Amino acid sequence: MAPDDSSKEAIMSATFDALCERGYANLTMQSIADEFDKSKSLIHYHYDSKDDLLAAFMDHLLENFVDMVTGCGGQDPVDELRRMAEIVIVGGDDGHDPNDFHTALLGLRAQAPYDEQLREQLARNDERIRELIADIVREGQERGQFDESVDPEAFAALFRYAIEGTQVHGVILGDAAQTDEVLAAVDDLIVDRLLAGEEGGE
Amino acid sequence: MAPDDSSKEAIMSATFDALCERGYANLTMQSIADEFDKSKSLIHYHYDSKDDLLAAFMDHLLENFVDMVTGCGGQDPVDELRRMAEIVIVGGDDGHDPNDFHTALLGLRAQAPYDEQLREQLARNDERIRELIADIVREGQERGQFDESVDPEAFAALFRYAIEGTQVHGVILGDAAQTDEVLAAVDDLIVDRLLAGEEGGE
Repeated sequence: MAPDDSSKEAIMSATFDALCERGYANLTMQSIADEFDKSKSLIHYHYDSKDDLLAAFMDHLLENFVDMVTGCGGQDPVDELRRMAEIVIVGGDDGHDPNDFHTALLGLRAQAPYDEQLREQLARNDERIRELIADIVREGQERGQFDESVDPEAFAALFRYAIEGTQVHGVILGDAAQTDEVLAAVDDLIVDRLLAGEEGGE
Repeated sequence: MAPDDSSKEAIMSATFDALCERGYANLTMQSIADEFDKSKSLIHYHYDSKDDLLAAFMDHLLENFVDMVTGCGGQDPVDELRRMAEIVIVGGDDGHDPNDFHTALLGLRAQAPYDEQLREQLARNDERIRELIADIVREGQERGQFDESVDPEAFAALFRYAIEGTQVHGVILGDAAQTDEVLAAVDDLIVDRLLAGEEGGE
Protein backbone atom coordinates (compact mmCIF):
# COMPACT_ATOMS: atom_id res chain seq x y z
CA MET A 1 0.00 0.00 0.00
CA ALA A 2 1.43 3.40 -0.95
CA PRO A 3 1.89 5.88 1.95
CA ASP A 4 -0.81 7.98 0.35
CA ASP A 5 -3.24 5.07 0.57
CA SER A 6 -2.40 4.41 4.18
CA SER A 7 -3.11 7.98 5.29
CA LYS A 8 -6.36 7.97 3.32
CA GLU A 9 -7.27 4.69 5.00
CA ALA A 10 -6.55 6.26 8.41
CA ILE A 11 -8.69 9.30 7.55
CA MET A 12 -11.56 7.01 6.52
CA SER A 13 -11.25 5.15 9.80
CA ALA A 14 -11.24 8.42 11.78
CA THR A 15 -14.33 9.55 9.86
CA PHE A 16 -16.09 6.29 10.69
CA ASP A 17 -15.21 6.71 14.40
CA ALA A 18 -16.32 10.35 14.50
CA LEU A 19 -19.58 9.57 12.71
CA CYS A 20 -20.43 6.71 15.09
CA GLU A 21 -19.55 8.79 18.12
CA ARG A 22 -21.23 12.09 17.25
CA GLY A 23 -23.80 11.34 14.59
CA TYR A 24 -24.03 13.05 11.22
CA ALA A 25 -25.50 16.34 12.51
CA ASN A 26 -22.47 16.99 14.75
CA LEU A 27 -19.77 15.82 12.37
CA THR A 28 -17.08 18.44 11.72
CA MET A 29 -13.57 18.34 10.25
CA GLN A 30 -12.34 18.97 13.81
CA SER A 31 -14.27 16.00 15.21
CA ILE A 32 -12.68 13.82 12.51
CA ALA A 33 -9.24 15.26 13.29
CA ASP A 34 -9.84 14.39 16.97
CA GLU A 35 -10.08 10.72 16.01
CA PHE A 36 -7.01 10.95 13.77
CA ASP A 37 -3.54 10.11 15.10
CA LYS A 38 -1.62 12.17 12.57
CA SER A 39 -1.66 15.88 11.77
CA LYS A 40 -4.94 17.55 10.94
CA SER A 41 -3.21 19.27 8.01
CA LEU A 42 -2.97 15.87 6.34
CA ILE A 43 -6.79 15.73 6.25
CA HIS A 44 -6.93 19.16 4.60
CA TYR A 45 -4.15 18.13 2.23
CA HIS A 46 -6.27 15.24 0.92
CA TYR A 47 -9.74 16.78 1.14
CA ASP A 48 -10.76 20.35 0.43
CA SER A 49 -13.93 20.29 2.49
CA LYS A 50 -16.13 18.17 4.71
CA ASP A 51 -18.33 17.46 1.67
CA ASP A 52 -15.31 16.15 -0.27
CA LEU A 53 -14.27 13.97 2.61
CA LEU A 54 -17.79 12.61 3.08
CA ALA A 55 -18.09 11.81 -0.61
CA ALA A 56 -14.84 9.84 -0.41
CA PHE A 57 -16.04 8.18 2.78
CA MET A 58 -19.25 7.01 1.14
CA ASP A 59 -17.29 5.55 -1.79
CA HIS A 60 -15.06 3.80 0.72
CA LEU A 61 -18.08 2.37 2.59
CA LEU A 62 -19.56 1.12 -0.66
CA GLU A 63 -16.34 -0.63 -1.73
CA ASN A 64 -16.00 -2.27 1.69
CA PHE A 65 -19.60 -3.38 1.56
CA VAL A 66 -19.22 -4.94 -1.89
CA ASP A 67 -16.02 -6.71 -0.76
CA MET A 68 -17.71 -8.06 2.37
CA VAL A 69 -20.61 -9.44 0.32
CA THR A 70 -18.69 -10.92 -2.60
CA GLY A 71 -15.49 -11.94 -0.77
CA CYS A 72 -12.95 -13.27 -3.26
CA GLY A 73 -15.63 -14.01 -5.85
CA GLY A 74 -16.97 -17.35 -7.00
CA GLN A 75 -19.17 -17.65 -3.89
CA ASP A 76 -22.54 -19.32 -3.71
CA PRO A 77 -25.23 -16.79 -4.74
CA VAL A 78 -27.50 -17.80 -1.83
CA ASP A 79 -24.67 -17.23 0.65
CA GLU A 80 -23.93 -13.83 -0.88
CA LEU A 81 -27.54 -12.68 -0.53
CA ARG A 82 -27.73 -13.99 3.04
CA ARG A 83 -24.48 -12.27 3.95
CA MET A 84 -25.72 -8.99 2.48
CA ALA A 85 -28.94 -9.20 4.52
CA GLU A 86 -26.96 -9.98 7.66
CA ILE A 87 -24.48 -7.10 7.15
CA VAL A 88 -27.23 -4.56 6.45
CA ILE A 89 -29.65 -5.66 9.19
CA VAL A 90 -27.37 -6.92 11.96
CA GLY A 91 -24.14 -5.08 11.10
CA GLY A 92 -20.73 -5.82 9.64
CA ASP A 93 -17.75 -7.09 11.55
CA ASP A 94 -15.90 -3.76 11.49
CA GLY A 95 -15.42 -3.08 15.20
CA HIS A 96 -18.09 -0.37 15.42
CA ASP A 97 -21.38 -0.51 17.27
CA PRO A 98 -23.83 -1.15 14.41
CA ASN A 99 -26.54 0.89 16.16
CA ASP A 100 -24.34 3.97 16.29
CA PHE A 101 -23.35 3.52 12.67
CA HIS A 102 -26.90 2.91 11.42
CA THR A 103 -28.16 5.92 13.39
CA ALA A 104 -25.48 8.11 11.79
CA LEU A 105 -26.34 6.69 8.38
CA LEU A 106 -30.02 7.52 8.84
CA GLY A 107 -29.07 11.06 9.92
CA LEU A 108 -27.02 11.42 6.73
CA ARG A 109 -29.77 10.00 4.52
CA ALA A 110 -32.42 12.22 6.09
CA GLN A 111 -30.37 15.20 4.83
CA ALA A 112 -30.55 14.01 1.23
CA PRO A 113 -33.82 15.81 0.38
CA TYR A 114 -32.02 19.11 1.16
CA ASP A 115 -28.63 18.35 -0.41
CA GLU A 116 -28.48 17.56 -4.12
CA GLN A 117 -24.84 16.41 -4.16
CA LEU A 118 -25.50 13.98 -1.32
CA ARG A 119 -28.69 12.75 -2.98
CA GLU A 120 -26.87 12.09 -6.25
CA GLN A 121 -24.17 10.13 -4.50
CA LEU A 122 -26.68 8.08 -2.54
CA ALA A 123 -28.55 7.40 -5.78
CA ARG A 124 -25.34 6.21 -7.50
CA ASN A 125 -24.51 3.95 -4.55
CA ASP A 126 -28.05 2.63 -4.48
CA GLU A 127 -27.88 1.79 -8.16
CA ARG A 128 -24.52 0.07 -7.75
CA ILE A 129 -25.85 -2.11 -4.93
CA ARG A 130 -29.05 -2.99 -6.80
CA GLU A 131 -26.87 -3.95 -9.79
CA LEU A 132 -24.78 -6.16 -7.50
CA ILE A 133 -27.92 -7.93 -6.24
CA ALA A 134 -29.27 -8.34 -9.78
CA ASP A 135 -25.87 -9.78 -10.86
CA ILE A 136 -25.99 -12.30 -8.02
CA VAL A 137 -29.50 -13.32 -9.10
CA ARG A 138 -28.34 -13.68 -12.73
CA GLU A 139 -25.35 -15.74 -11.61
CA GLY A 140 -27.72 -18.05 -9.71
CA GLN A 141 -29.92 -18.31 -12.79
CA GLU A 142 -26.96 -19.07 -15.06
CA ARG A 143 -25.86 -21.80 -12.67
CA GLY A 144 -29.36 -23.26 -12.87
CA GLN A 145 -29.83 -22.67 -9.13
CA PHE A 146 -32.43 -19.91 -9.29
CA ASP A 147 -35.86 -19.78 -10.87
CA GLU A 148 -35.51 -18.31 -14.41
CA SER A 149 -38.83 -16.49 -14.19
CA VAL A 150 -37.59 -14.04 -11.53
CA ASP A 151 -36.85 -10.54 -12.88
CA PRO A 152 -33.37 -9.77 -11.45
CA GLU A 153 -33.90 -5.97 -11.33
CA ALA A 154 -37.32 -6.13 -9.66
CA PHE A 155 -36.07 -8.69 -7.15
CA ALA A 156 -33.02 -6.51 -6.49
CA ALA A 157 -35.15 -3.42 -5.74
CA LEU A 158 -37.43 -5.37 -3.40
CA PHE A 159 -34.54 -7.15 -1.67
CA ARG A 160 -32.52 -3.99 -1.17
CA TYR A 161 -35.35 -1.80 0.10
CA ALA A 162 -36.58 -4.62 2.38
CA ILE A 163 -33.23 -5.05 4.12
CA GLU A 164 -32.50 -1.31 4.18
CA GLY A 165 -36.03 -0.64 5.47
CA THR A 166 -35.37 -3.14 8.24
CA GLN A 167 -32.11 -1.39 9.15
CA VAL A 168 -33.92 1.97 9.25
CA HIS A 169 -36.67 0.54 11.46
CA GLY A 170 -34.02 -0.96 13.72
CA VAL A 171 -32.72 2.58 14.28
CA ILE A 172 -36.17 4.15 14.61
CA LEU A 173 -37.77 1.52 16.83
CA GLY A 174 -34.79 0.07 18.70
CA ASP A 175 -35.46 -3.36 20.17
CA ALA A 176 -39.11 -3.17 19.12
CA ALA A 177 -38.14 -3.65 15.46
CA GLN A 178 -38.76 -7.20 14.29
CA THR A 179 -35.33 -7.65 12.73
CA ASP A 180 -35.12 -11.38 13.54
CA GLU A 181 -38.46 -12.01 11.88
CA VAL A 182 -37.31 -10.15 8.78
CA LEU A 183 -34.06 -12.10 8.61
CA ALA A 184 -36.12 -15.31 8.72
CA ALA A 185 -38.53 -13.92 6.13
CA VAL A 186 -35.68 -12.82 3.85
CA ASP A 187 -34.41 -16.35 4.04
CA ASP A 188 -37.87 -17.66 3.14
CA LEU A 189 -37.93 -15.16 0.30
CA ILE A 190 -34.62 -16.39 -1.10
CA VAL A 191 -35.57 -20.03 -0.66
CA ASP A 192 -39.17 -19.79 -1.85
CA ARG A 193 -38.82 -17.23 -4.58
CA LEU A 194 -35.39 -17.86 -6.03
CA LEU A 195 -34.93 -21.54 -5.35
CA ALA A 196 -38.55 -22.32 -6.21
CA GLY A 197 -37.49 -24.17 -9.33
CA GLU A 198 -35.64 -26.77 -7.25
CA GLU A 199 -38.72 -28.13 -5.58
CA GLY A 200 -41.59 -27.44 -7.91
CA GLY A 201 -40.03 -27.33 -11.37
CA GLU A 202 -41.39 -24.93 -13.98
CA MET B 1 -70.02 14.42 14.76
CA ALA B 2 -69.81 16.27 18.08
CA PRO B 3 -68.41 19.86 17.91
CA ASP B 4 -65.45 18.64 19.88
CA ASP B 5 -64.67 16.05 17.21
CA SER B 6 -64.97 18.57 14.43
CA SER B 7 -62.45 20.98 15.97
CA LYS B 8 -60.06 18.11 16.66
CA GLU B 9 -60.47 17.02 13.04
CA ALA B 10 -59.64 20.59 11.91
CA ILE B 11 -56.57 20.69 14.16
CA MET B 12 -55.37 17.36 12.71
CA SER B 13 -55.81 18.75 9.23
CA ALA B 14 -53.89 21.93 10.11
CA THR B 15 -51.09 19.80 11.58
CA PHE B 16 -50.94 17.75 8.37
CA ASP B 17 -50.72 20.96 6.30
CA ALA B 18 -48.05 22.51 8.52
CA LEU B 19 -45.99 19.32 8.54
CA CYS B 20 -46.08 19.00 4.74
CA GLU B 21 -45.24 22.66 4.28
CA ARG B 22 -42.44 23.09 6.81
CA GLY B 23 -41.14 19.64 7.60
CA TYR B 24 -40.83 18.15 11.06
CA ALA B 25 -37.80 20.17 12.16
CA ASN B 26 -39.62 23.49 11.69
CA LEU B 27 -42.99 22.46 13.07
CA THR B 28 -44.21 24.71 15.90
CA MET B 29 -47.58 25.26 17.57
CA GLN B 30 -47.60 28.65 15.80
CA SER B 31 -47.05 27.06 12.37
CA ILE B 32 -49.99 24.73 13.05
CA ALA B 33 -52.11 27.67 14.22
CA ASP B 34 -51.23 29.47 10.96
CA GLU B 35 -52.94 26.66 9.03
CA PHE B 36 -55.96 26.69 11.36
CA ASP B 37 -59.05 28.75 10.60
CA LYS B 38 -60.27 29.00 14.16
CA SER B 39 -58.70 30.51 17.27
CA LYS B 40 -55.26 29.32 18.31
CA SER B 41 -56.57 29.05 21.90
CA LEU B 42 -58.69 26.12 20.75
CA ILE B 43 -55.50 24.22 19.94
CA HIS B 44 -54.12 24.89 23.41
CA TYR B 45 -57.49 23.97 24.91
CA HIS B 46 -57.27 20.50 23.38
CA TYR B 47 -53.51 19.88 23.55
CA ASP B 48 -51.14 20.90 26.33
CA SER B 49 -48.00 20.81 24.21
CA LYS B 50 -46.62 20.14 20.75
CA ASP B 51 -45.70 16.63 21.91
CA ASP B 52 -49.32 15.97 22.98
CA LEU B 53 -50.61 17.24 19.67
CA LEU B 54 -48.11 15.19 17.68
CA ALA B 55 -49.00 12.05 19.64
CA ALA B 56 -52.67 12.61 18.79
CA PHE B 57 -51.74 13.34 15.17
CA MET B 58 -49.87 10.08 14.83
CA ASP B 59 -52.83 8.14 16.26
CA HIS B 60 -55.03 9.95 13.78
CA LEU B 61 -52.71 9.05 10.87
CA LEU B 62 -52.69 5.41 11.94
CA GLU B 63 -56.49 5.22 12.15
CA ASN B 64 -56.84 6.84 8.72
CA PHE B 65 -54.29 4.46 7.27
CA VAL B 66 -56.06 1.38 8.67
CA ASP B 67 -59.39 2.68 7.33
CA MET B 68 -57.92 3.31 3.87
CA VAL B 69 -56.51 -0.22 3.72
CA THR B 70 -59.44 -2.16 5.14
CA GLY B 71 -62.29 0.01 3.84
CA CYS B 72 -65.62 -1.27 5.13
CA GLY B 73 -64.19 -4.71 5.87
CA GLY B 74 -64.82 -7.97 4.08
CA GLN B 75 -62.44 -7.01 1.26
CA ASP B 76 -60.28 -9.37 -0.74
CA PRO B 77 -56.98 -9.93 1.17
CA VAL B 78 -54.91 -9.52 -2.01
CA ASP B 79 -56.57 -6.17 -2.73
CA GLU B 80 -55.93 -5.02 0.84
CA LEU B 81 -52.22 -5.81 0.63
CA ARG B 82 -51.92 -4.17 -2.78
CA ARG B 83 -53.74 -1.07 -1.53
CA MET B 84 -51.44 -0.85 1.49
CA ALA B 85 -48.33 -1.05 -0.73
CA GLU B 86 -49.75 1.62 -3.03
CA ILE B 87 -50.65 4.01 -0.17
CA VAL B 88 -47.25 3.63 1.49
CA ILE B 89 -45.11 3.79 -1.65
CA VAL B 90 -47.09 6.08 -3.96
CA GLY B 91 -49.19 8.01 -1.42
CA GLY B 92 -52.77 8.20 -0.22
CA ASP B 93 -55.54 10.19 -1.80
CA ASP B 94 -55.59 12.84 0.92
CA GLY B 95 -54.93 16.01 -1.06
CA HIS B 96 -51.30 16.42 0.10
CA ASP B 97 -48.14 16.10 -1.96
CA PRO B 98 -46.92 12.63 -0.93
CA ASN B 99 -43.28 13.70 -1.29
CA ASP B 100 -43.73 16.51 1.21
CA PHE B 101 -45.53 14.23 3.60
CA HIS B 102 -43.02 11.36 3.29
CA THR B 103 -40.14 13.80 3.76
CA ALA B 104 -41.77 15.15 6.95
CA LEU B 105 -42.38 11.60 8.15
CA LEU B 106 -38.73 10.68 7.63
CA GLY B 107 -37.68 13.82 9.54
CA LEU B 108 -39.94 12.77 12.41
CA ARG B 109 -38.69 9.18 12.39
CA ALA B 110 -35.05 10.25 12.28
CA GLN B 111 -35.69 11.97 15.65
CA ALA B 112 -36.84 8.74 17.28
CA PRO B 113 -33.38 7.61 18.44
CA TYR B 114 -33.21 10.81 20.53
CA ASP B 115 -36.81 10.89 21.81
CA GLU B 116 -38.08 7.97 23.87
CA GLN B 117 -41.76 8.98 23.86
CA LEU B 118 -41.73 9.30 20.08
CA ARG B 119 -39.90 5.99 19.68
CA GLU B 120 -42.45 4.20 21.88
CA GLN B 121 -45.33 5.59 19.87
CA LEU B 122 -43.71 4.65 16.56
CA ALA B 123 -43.09 1.16 17.95
CA ARG B 124 -46.75 0.81 18.99
CA ASN B 125 -47.92 1.98 15.56
CA ASP B 126 -45.47 -0.33 13.84
CA GLU B 127 -46.77 -3.28 15.87
CA ARG B 128 -50.36 -2.37 15.08
CA ILE B 129 -49.66 -2.26 11.34
CA ARG B 130 -47.70 -5.53 11.35
CA GLU B 131 -50.64 -7.11 13.20
CA LEU B 132 -52.99 -5.77 10.53
CA ILE B 133 -50.86 -7.33 7.77
CA ALA B 134 -50.63 -10.64 9.67
CA ASP B 135 -54.43 -10.58 10.13
CA ILE B 136 -54.92 -10.07 6.40
CA VAL B 137 -52.59 -13.02 5.69
CA ARG B 138 -54.51 -15.18 8.22
CA GLU B 139 -57.81 -14.16 6.63
CA GLY B 140 -56.46 -15.23 3.22
CA GLN B 141 -55.31 -18.52 4.71
CA GLU B 142 -58.70 -19.15 6.36
CA ARG B 143 -60.41 -18.49 3.06
CA GLY B 144 -58.14 -21.07 1.45
CA GLN B 145 -56.69 -18.36 -0.81
CA PHE B 146 -53.18 -18.15 0.68
CA ASP B 147 -50.52 -20.78 1.15
CA GLU B 148 -50.88 -22.23 4.68
CA SER B 149 -47.11 -22.63 5.08
CA VAL B 150 -46.47 -18.85 5.20
CA ASP B 151 -45.77 -17.54 8.71
CA PRO B 152 -48.09 -14.49 8.99
CA GLU B 153 -45.85 -12.55 11.41
CA ALA B 154 -42.64 -13.09 9.45
CA PHE B 155 -44.39 -12.18 6.19
CA ALA B 156 -45.86 -9.08 7.89
CA ALA B 157 -42.43 -7.86 9.06
CA LEU B 158 -40.89 -8.37 5.61
CA PHE B 159 -43.85 -6.80 3.77
CA ARG B 160 -44.01 -3.76 6.06
CA TYR B 161 -40.30 -3.01 6.09
CA ALA B 162 -40.07 -3.56 2.33
CA ILE B 163 -42.79 -1.02 1.53
CA GLU B 164 -41.68 1.43 4.23
CA GLY B 165 -38.06 1.03 3.08
CA THR B 166 -39.22 1.88 -0.44
CA GLN B 167 -41.02 5.00 0.83
CA VAL B 168 -37.88 6.08 2.70
CA HIS B 169 -35.71 5.54 -0.41
CA GLY B 170 -38.24 7.51 -2.44
CA VAL B 171 -37.58 10.45 -0.12
CA ILE B 172 -33.82 9.95 0.02
CA LEU B 173 -33.20 9.29 -3.66
CA GLY B 174 -36.05 11.17 -5.34
CA ASP B 175 -36.74 9.99 -8.85
CA ALA B 176 -33.74 7.67 -8.76
CA ALA B 177 -35.56 5.32 -6.36
CA GLN B 178 -36.93 2.27 -8.12
CA THR B 179 -40.42 2.51 -6.65
CA ASP B 180 -42.16 1.12 -9.75
CA GLU B 181 -39.92 -1.93 -9.73
CA VAL B 182 -40.68 -2.52 -6.08
CA LEU B 183 -44.43 -2.20 -6.64
CA ALA B 184 -44.13 -4.86 -9.35
CA ALA B 185 -41.94 -7.01 -7.11
CA VAL B 186 -44.36 -6.64 -4.18
CA ASP B 187 -47.06 -7.88 -6.48
CA ASP B 188 -44.88 -10.83 -7.48
CA LEU B 189 -44.25 -11.46 -3.81
CA ILE B 190 -47.96 -11.55 -3.02
CA VAL B 191 -48.73 -13.68 -6.03
CA ASP B 192 -45.79 -16.07 -5.78
CA ARG B 193 -45.47 -16.40 -2.06
CA LEU B 194 -49.01 -16.14 -0.79
CA LEU B 195 -51.00 -17.46 -3.71
CA ALA B 196 -48.47 -20.21 -4.43
CA GLY B 197 -50.95 -22.87 -3.35
CA GLU B 198 -53.28 -21.96 -6.23
CA GLU B 199 -50.93 -22.99 -9.02
CA GLY B 200 -48.70 -25.72 -7.66
CA GLY B 201 -49.33 -26.62 -4.05
CA GLU B 202 -50.62 -29.83 -2.66
